[in-house]
Formats: sequence, structure tokens, C-alpha cells
Amino acid sequence: MHVTLAELACLLTGELEGDGETLICGLAPLDQAQAGDLAFVAENKHAAQLAASCATAVLVAPHVRVDRPAIRVAEPYLGFIHLLEHFFPPQHPTWGIDARASIGPEVELGARVNIGPYVVIERGVRLGDDVTVYPGTYIGAACEIGAGCVLYAHVSLYPRVHLGRRVIIHSGAVIGADGFGFYALLDGALRKIPQVGRVVIGDAVEIGANTCVDRATLGDTIIEAGAKLDNLVQIGHNSVVGAHSVLAGQVGLSGSVRLGPGVRIGGQAGIADHITVGDKASISAQAGVIADVEPGATVYGTPAVAEGKRIALYSLRLGDLFQQVKQLQRRLDALEGRETRS
Amino acid sequence: MHVTLAELACLLTGELEGDGETLICGLAPLDQAQAGDLAFVAENKHAAQLAASCATAVLVAPHVRVDRPAIRVAEPYLGFIHLLEHFFPPQHPTWGIDARASIGPEVELGARVNIGPYVVIERGVRLGDDVTVYPGTYIGAACEIGAGCVLYAHVSLYPRVHLGRRVIIHSGAVIGADGFGFYALLDGALRKIPQVGRVVIGDAVEIGANTCVDRATLGDTIIEAGAKLDNLVQIGHNSVVGAHSVLAGQVGLSGSVRLGPGVRIGGQAGIADHITVGDKASISAQAGVIADVEPGATVYGTPAVAEGKRIALYSLRLGDLFQQVKQLQRRLDALEGRETRS
Amino acid sequence: MHVTLAELACLLTGELEGDGETLICGLAPLDQAQAGDLAFVAENKHAAQLAASCATAVLVAPHVRVDRPAIRVAEPYLGFIHLLEHFFPPQHPTWGIDARASIGPEVELGARVNIGPYVVIERGVRLGDDVTVYPGTYIGAACEIGAGCVLYAHVSLYPRVHLGRRVIIHSGAVIGADGFGFYALLDGALRKIPQVGRVVIGDAVEIGANTCVDRATLGDTIIEAGAKLDNLVQIGHNSVVGAHSVLAGQVGLSGSVRLGPGVRIGGQAGIADHITVGDKASISAQAGVIADVEPGATVYGTPAVAEGKRIALYSLRLGDLFQQVKQLQRRLDALEGRETRS
Repeated sequence: MHVTLAELACLLTGELEGDGETLICGLAPLDQAQAGDLAFVAENKHAAQLAASCATAVLVAPHVRVDRPAIRVAEPYLGFIHLLEHFFPPQHPTWGIDARASIGPEVELGARVNIGPYVVIERGVRLGDDVTVYPGTYIGAACEIGAGCVLYAHVSLYPRVHLGRRVIIHSGAVIGADGFGFYALLDGALRKIPQVGRVVIGDAVEIGANTCVDRATLGDTIIEAGAKLDNLVQIGHNSVVGAHSVLAGQVGLSGSVRLGPGVRIGGQAGIADHITVGDKASISAQAGVIADVEPGATVYGTPAVAEGKRIALYSLRLGDLFQQVKQLQRRLDALEGRETRS
Repeated sequence: MHVTLAELACLLTGELEGDGETLICGLAPLDQAQAGDLAFVAENKHAAQLAASCATAVLVAPHVRVDRPAIRVAEPYLGFIHLLEHFFPPQHPTWGIDARASIGPEVELGARVNIGPYVVIERGVRLGDDVTVYPGTYIGAACEIGAGCVLYAHVSLYPRVHLGRRVIIHSGAVIGADGFGFYALLDGALRKIPQVGRVVIGDAVEIGANTCVDRATLGDTIIEAGAKLDNLVQIGHNSVVGAHSVLAGQVGLSGSVRLGPGVRIGGQAGIADHITVGDKASISAQAGVIADVEPGATVYGTPAVAEGKRIALYSLRLGDLFQQVKQLQRRLDALEGRETRS
Repeated sequence: MHVTLAELACLLTGELEGDGETLICGLAPLDQAQAGDLAFVAENKHAAQLAASCATAVLVAPHVRVDRPAIRVAEPYLGFIHLLEHFFPPQHPTWGIDARASIGPEVELGARVNIGPYVVIERGVRLGDDVTVYPGTYIGAACEIGAGCVLYAHVSLYPRVHLGRRVIIHSGAVIGADGFGFYALLDGALRKIPQVGRVVIGDAVEIGANTCVDRATLGDTIIEAGAKLDNLVQIGHNSVVGAHSVLAGQVGLSGSVRLGPGVRIGGQAGIADHITVGDKASISAQAGVIADVEPGATVYGTPAVAEGKRIALYSLRLGDLFQQVKQLQRRLDALEGRETRS
């Protein structure tokens, strides 16, 4: 990029402060910015970082004090995102419908679909307009892919998966593999229970690399609109992830878990089967949830409870506690000894 | 499906109760069943759910009371599985040997193999009868794949992996990648130790999506017959997973772990290297196992111990304990003070 | 292999002891060795295992006592690695540049590159000499792949990933997928923050199967030279993994984590965002690191602390502690009762 501060102010409909002819060559976080970069400052508390920054100009909130050319906007981070989108738009290779893709019978393709080499699309799949499918991705029979979806390389969709619009699925994710269900026979052998349910994924969901979302014996596994799943997440059969929920890397949901909308889950946390987590609840990283979580609650630890953080701090003082109890015993021994002698 | 209850009773060799002409259109769990569905009830304790269910008919155990048309069988869940298998048989696309698959020299293909486009089968691989290989799967040199195996899309088998019969491997699983072995040189650099062992997988094993089973420097990593591994599981080099063991999602086994037959491991549990877990032992979700586990034992927590669940409950009361000890100190202070004064 | 002990001694420039004509047919660990095998013994403490071993000959350190033909070398394990490398060299299929690979415009290919079928290499990629790319791997636009790299099947490199020389990436690994960054709007919806940073991987790094290394909004995610990542590891955006660090399976790093050189992390451990871990620090398996770790320190538990192991042992005695406190209360009750009565 190579643009004046005045042009950027215009783009963001922000208020220019200082020299509009200041030339901006890049975008950067405040602490990594170099000469020529535009950074952003949301709060006055970052004043020291601003003073130390090499950024040539900054995007700031209306009330923030500045020491250099600036653009004032209501939400500087959002403005920064706008600029990132403008100057670094998502760029997918243009394949059209590559001749080396395998398109099955009765497949419906929307307008402007972009399908890379070695993609396999099985019988009866429907792709909406503007869908991009990267090389090597596999789409099983009768899947439905909404308009504007992007499937990166090596994604696997088992049959009858339903994706809403503008879903992004990163490489290696597996959607609709069999739920983990077996019936123990008397001799200890395990009989596979057929998994013939569906996976249904709402609009604007993003699914991370190598994440797995399983289908169920019957019924649906559901990821509601706007939910975001990081990499290497496991979603068990029949689970429901609420709208706009955020699941960090390596989170695991057993079967039939229900997350309300707006739930946040930290990395490597796990949730036992048939648990319900209320709206906007927050589950800390590495927590192990084995009881329902109230809406809005924050839980921590294994087993995960609201006072989990305090318990963890207490546990760090366990050595002291053992010492204190030993000392109490000695003092009591002494008191009782004196009492006996007296 | 569209079948009479009498026909289903015949199929299951069960005992018909009520109107045999009752029309069944679907199978469903009791709580999700709609009119036209057949559900199943294993125990009288589900009587309230049965009363509330919209299921048109039920599959029940001989002793269970019913309020609608029913089929009685010894094991209703197993009967339900039979019906699922009958009405929703596994359906793989029919590729024959797709012309776009790459089949190396000296490959032996059994009868009725079904190989999708963009599959790569390297030199010297042997595929048994009725093997299905989904698109994009890679089978390294000299692998042996038993009859009836199903490899879903994007599976990677490194060379010389041995699969028994009827093994199912889900998408993205990686079997036989190098074990994680390095030799620390004096300057801190790490020299790779060659990993030339094998991975051997028994009959009727099922391996979940994106699960990894590593090969060893020397010797075999073994998954015994009938074991079931969920998604995103890590099996380190030289480990042995016993027959009919069940490993839930995101479980991790370090190197040289030995699980006896019938072991159950909950999600996200981890087992340190060289640990032996006895037959039918049970390891709770998120447990961290750093000592051998006796046959039949149940362990919980990190470090995993038999009394782990009780310890977890105690730890939830740690705040109380700190208060109690503080109070004891005050009472002792008071007693000692009075004693000194007296 | 089929070689005399004298020939092996010559190969290792070691000192022959006993019959040089002894025929060696294989290499094995001491406890698994059979007749004809060569094993190795680093220390006299393994004398009992040596006595019980069926190995025909051994590779030993200068000071170790032996009871059979032997080769003495300074570092027997390293010698054993040399022999493994010599007799089991890495063998990749020879594809040349397979006609079924898709090579984009402006791609530069070094000498002796070996590219399998169904590989996709996008526009502007540069591959160094002697690079091997297994079937089905995807290399995004403008990636740079140093000399001698090996990418196994189904690896996904997003655009502009930079690999040094002799990097090994195992199947299913995803390098450069979008960092997990969203901006919460007032209505609870989450707006994707563009991720336009790079991933830079140093020389001689090895990355395990299905491991994910994310790119950042801006700036680089860096894996320094010689670092080794096991399977199913998650590296968040902007993190830096120091040179020669070792991360075991299923480890997770949040965003902007900084590991110094020579750090060791046990399986399933997690590190919160913006944490710094000093040189050669050691983080135990399943630890949850939420505070910076000093160079050389060892931390354990969640939250991870230096005394974590001791705390874990204390926690195993929590039941006793509760009993002791209850007993103290009873004794105090008795003392106070007597005092009141007296």
C-alpha cells in the first residue's frame, strides 16, 4: 500500500488530524510499527506505548491524546480491520471449474463457483453462488453448500452435510464423520451403531484446521450461525454449538452437549456428554465441565466450578496448610500435655 | 422406510404386540420420535418418557410395560441397531478402480475393490477383497490392507502399515508417521532417530478422523482387534492398545504405553511413556496417568489415582478448610493466652 | 542387513572386541533383540538386561563390561543411530515431476525435486534443490521451500509460508491457516479480523502429523531452527518457538507465546497468550501455563508452578488433611470444654 493519510481518513469517514499528505505504506500493531506504518490506539492507557512507537500515524478514538498525525474514528480497531480488508482482500486462486476436478452426476453448481484441481464432488451435491473449493477437498453425496462458502484444501465433508452461507472451513477439517457409538456385546466386542444423522452448520460459521464435527446415530449435530471454532476442536455427535459461540483450539465436546449462544470456551477445555451450557457462559482453558453451567457464569478447573480460580490459588498454598496443621497438632499436644501434668 | 410393524417383528424375530398393520416410517430415539416413528425402550424406568413420546410404536424388552403397539425382543437396543443397519446400510460411491487413481507397480488388488479418484497406491501394496478407498487417500509402499477395510478421504498410510480385516479409518487419520524420537547432541541440536518400525492394526478396529498412530524406531506399534479410537487421538511409537479398548476423543498415549484388552479412556486423558494399564481398567476424561494402573481399576485426575474423584471433591472444599484452620489457630491462641495469664 | 561385526566396527570407526566374523542380521533394542541382532548398551547399570538379552553382539561405551562380541564407541546410542541411518536410509518413491501434479505459473523448481501425483503448487512458489513433495500436498501461492525439505502426503501450506532447509512436515499438517481473531460487534456477532501475516519455519524443523501452525493478523509466527513439534500440536498466531525446542503431542500454544531456545513441553500442556517461557525451561505434560516461566525452570500443574509436583502430591493427601483438621477440632472442643467446666 502507498496512500496518504487524507485518503485513508476519507475511506474510513474519520476526522483527519495533522498533515493529510503524510504517506502511509503499511499497517502494523503499535509495538511493531515502523516508519511509514499506521497503527491504532483505542485507549489513553496506551499513551506510553504510543510515545515509544515508530508508527508514522495512528488511528485513534475521539478522546485519545496523540502526538503525531492521526485519524479519529469511533472504533479504531474496527477501522483498522476495515483497512486490512481493503488493502489485503482475501485472494483465492482462480480455477473456474478445473478440468481435473471430479464432478458427480446431479450436481448443481451456482454462479461463479471456483473449484480447484483434484476436488471430488459426489452425486447430488448443491453448491451455491460464489463458492470456492480448494484443491483436494472431498464433498460427499447430497451435501448442500451455501453461497459464498470457502473450503480450503483437504477438507472432508461426509454425505448430507449442510453448510449455510459464507461458511469458512480450513484445511484438514472433517465434517460429518461417524459419531463414536458402539454397543458392548456380552463377549466384550463392540458393535458399531450406524451413524445416519446429519451435520448442519449455520451462516458465517468458521471452522479451524483439522477440526472434527461428528454426525449422530439419528438427529442433527448443529453449529449455529456465526460460531467460530479454532483448530483441532472435537465436536461429538448430537451436540449443538450456539450462535456466535467461540471455541478455542483443542476444545472437546462429547456427545449431546448443548451450548447456548455466545458461549466462550478456552483452549483444551472439555465438556462431558449431555451437559448444557447457558447463554454467554464462559469456560476457562483446560476446564473439565461435568455439570450444567448457568447462563453468564464463568467456570474454571476440573471439575469446573465458579469458584475454580480461587480453589486453584488455594491449592498453590497446600504446602503451607499442611505445615500449619502440623504446627497446630504440636501446640495442641503441648497444651494437652501440660493439662495432664497439672 | 415404509414398512408394517409385523414385517419389522418378522425381521427381528421378535414378538408382535398390538396392531401388526401399524405403519412405520422412521426410527428415532424415544425423546425425539414423531408420529410414524419406531423407538426403543430397554427398561421400565423410562416409562414416563415413553408416555410422553410421540413414537407410534416401540421396540421393548420382554418385561417392559407398553401403552402402544410394540415388538418385544431380548435386547431392544441391539434390535434397533439391526434395523438401522437394515434400513440405512453403509453406502459408498461406486468407483470400481477409478481411472484417475494412481496404482503403483506390484500392487495386488482383491476382488471388488472400490478405489476413488486421486487415490495413490504405492509399489507393492496388497489390498484384500471388498476394500473401499475414498478419494485422495494415500497408501505408502508395501502396506497390507485386509479384506473389507474402508479408508475414507485423505487418509495417509506411511509405508509398511498392516491393517487387518474390516478396519475403518476415517478422514485425515495418519497411520505410521515417524515416532517422536531425537538424540540431543552436546550443542543442544537434536538428531533425528530413524523410525523404521511398523504399525499393525487388528481386525475390526475403527480409527477416528485426524487421529495419528506413530511408527517406532524398531518394533511395532499395535492396535489390537476390535479397539475403537475416536477423533484426534495420538498414539505414540511402540504403544499397544489392547483388544476392544475404547479411546475417546483427543486422548494421548506417549511412547511404549501398554493397554490391556477392554480398557476405557475418557476424552483428553493422557498416559505417560512406558505405563502399563491392566485389562478393563477405566481412565477418566482429562486424567494424567503417570503410574501403572491395575486391571479393572478406575483412575481419575492428574496424577491419576483410584481415589481421584474423592480428592477432586475435597479440593472443591479447600476454601472451607483454610477457614477452619484459621479458626483453629485463633481458638488455640486464645487457649494458650488464657493458660499463660492463669 | 547381513554384515560382519568387523565391517560394522569399521563403519563406526569403533573398537572391535571378540570375533569379528560374527554375522549381524538386524538391529534391535536390548530387551527385544533376537539371535543375529546387534543391540546397544550405554551404561553398566544395564548389565542385568545385557545378560538376559538374546542379542548376538552389542555396541557399548568404552567402560561398559560385556559378555559377548562387541564394538566399543564413545556414544553407543549415536552409533546405533548411524547404523539405522546406514541400513535403513529414508526411501521416498521416485516421481520426478509427476505429470499429474499441478504446477502453477512462475514456479521455480530446484534440481532433483521429486513431486508426486495430485500435488498442487500455486503461482510463484519457489522450491529448493532436492525437495520431495508427497502426493496430494497443497502449496499455496508464493511459498518458499528450502533445499532438502520433505512434505509428506496431504500437507497444506497456505500462501507465503517460508520453510528453511531440510524441514520435514508430516501428513495432514496445516501451516499458515488464519489465526483465530475476531472482533465482537455490539450485537454479539463476531467480525473476522483479516490474517495477513506470515509463517516462517527455520532449518531442520520437524512438524508432526496433523499439527497446525497459524498465521497472524500482521507479523510472523516463527518456528526457529531445529525445533521439533510432535503430532496434533496447535501453534497460535504470532507465537515464536525457540530453536531446538521440543513440543510433545497435543501441546497447545495460544497467540503471541514466546518460547526461548531449548524449551521442552510435555504432551497436552497448554500455554496462555502473551506468555514468555525462558531458555531451556521445562513444562510438564498437561500443565497449564498462565504466567511467564524463568529460563531453566521446570513447571508443573494448572496453574503451572515450580512446586507443582509437590502440590500434586499434597493434594493426594487431602483426605487425610480433612480428617486431621476434624480431629483437631474435636481435641480443641474437649480442651475448651474442660477449661469451661474447671
